[in-house]
Amino acid sequence: MNEVMKNILGRRSIRSFQKRQITEEELGEILEAGKYAPSAMNQQSWYFAAVQDRSLIDSLLESAAEFLRTPGTDPFYGAPTVIFVFGDKSAIAPVSDASLAIENMFLAAWSMGIGSCWVNFVGRFFESPASQPYREKLKVPEGYQCVGSVILGYIDGEIPEAKPRRDGTVRIIR
Amino acid sequence: MNEVMKNILGRRSIRSFQKRQITEEELGEILEAGKYAPSAMNQQSWYFAAVQDRSLIDSLLESAAEFLRTPGTDPFYGAPTVIFVFGDKSAIAPVSDASLAIENMFLAAWSMGIGSCWVNFVGRFFESPASQPYREKLKVPEGYQCVGSVILGYIDGEIPEAKPRRDGTVRIIR
Repeated sequence: MNEVMKNILGRRSIRSFQKRQITEEELGEILEAGKYAPSAMNQQSWYFAAVQDRSLIDSLLESAAEFLRTPGTDPFYGAPTVIFVFGDKSAIAPVSDASLAIENMFLAAWSMGIGSCWVNFVGRFFESPASQPYREKLKVPEGYQCVGSVILGYIDGEIPEAKPRRDGTVRIIR
Repeated sequence: MNEVMKNILGRRSIRSFQKRQITEEELGEILEAGKYAPSAMNQQSWYFAAVQDRSLIDSLLESAAEFLRTPGTDPFYGAPTVIFVFGDKSAIAPVSDASLAIENMFLAAWSMGIGSCWVNFVGRFFESPASQPYREKLKVPEGYQCVGSVILGYIDGEIPEAKPRRDGTVRIIR
């Protein structure tokens, strides 16, 4: 099995992070990986806002309290970096484009020993009026929706086992 | 730069294929890569129908004629394998889940020297009554939408240059 396959099959979603920040170079490579995803008609309909300012994240979490499943806990699991991923609502396929980019970022991160996870509540939050100040701080272009967020950091503790794959999801017709 | 990053940055969408079929083992690894994508709440909301029966593909194309942008041309570019990717409409995030899986399949294929491309008209076709016989042949579970299709084959000819990346898609806030 080649290195790429090993990385794809070995990647896990990580929810426990060391406090120390990932390097500038690592973040740059991860974002570059996102930019090199394919997109419908090459529209590259994404916008990535990488936030490493914990006070900005904490203030966003306060404003987003009503969108959290478990208020009082950190939905970003203390990750030192959060990339908010937006997509141009007027594009052909903003959700797919952004998702392809997010998978590239997950895989790039994993290949450098950096853990990641998709955090989803941000999609709903960024549709609310309470998100307006954060749209401004993140300089989100007009008409973009938040597709999800990617948390990043060095892994703290054990890497979880892969969950079993569901049966019946593949059929081959020759 | 590591092998995973090289594979991510080097991947291109391919639209010209050799006629010979990819191997069973290669197809198996590509599908396995798809199954190992992350998904919202681990729902694995996808269904992959890989078709290598050209007469089935041709008959589908006849039934889908009105959905093609350029009737008379092959929207699958003569690829010997087409994976139709479906998502459970009742899942949390079927389009994102399927898209993450598709990017894994693109990258797995590329790492084995196999070209791929997203082909999108199938999404509209599989919402039409004309698609019913194909939903049956592909054994698509009830309540699933077609998110897209992945064409696969050995690359014929030159690998295209990367298109320039759009400016202004990344912001870092430290």
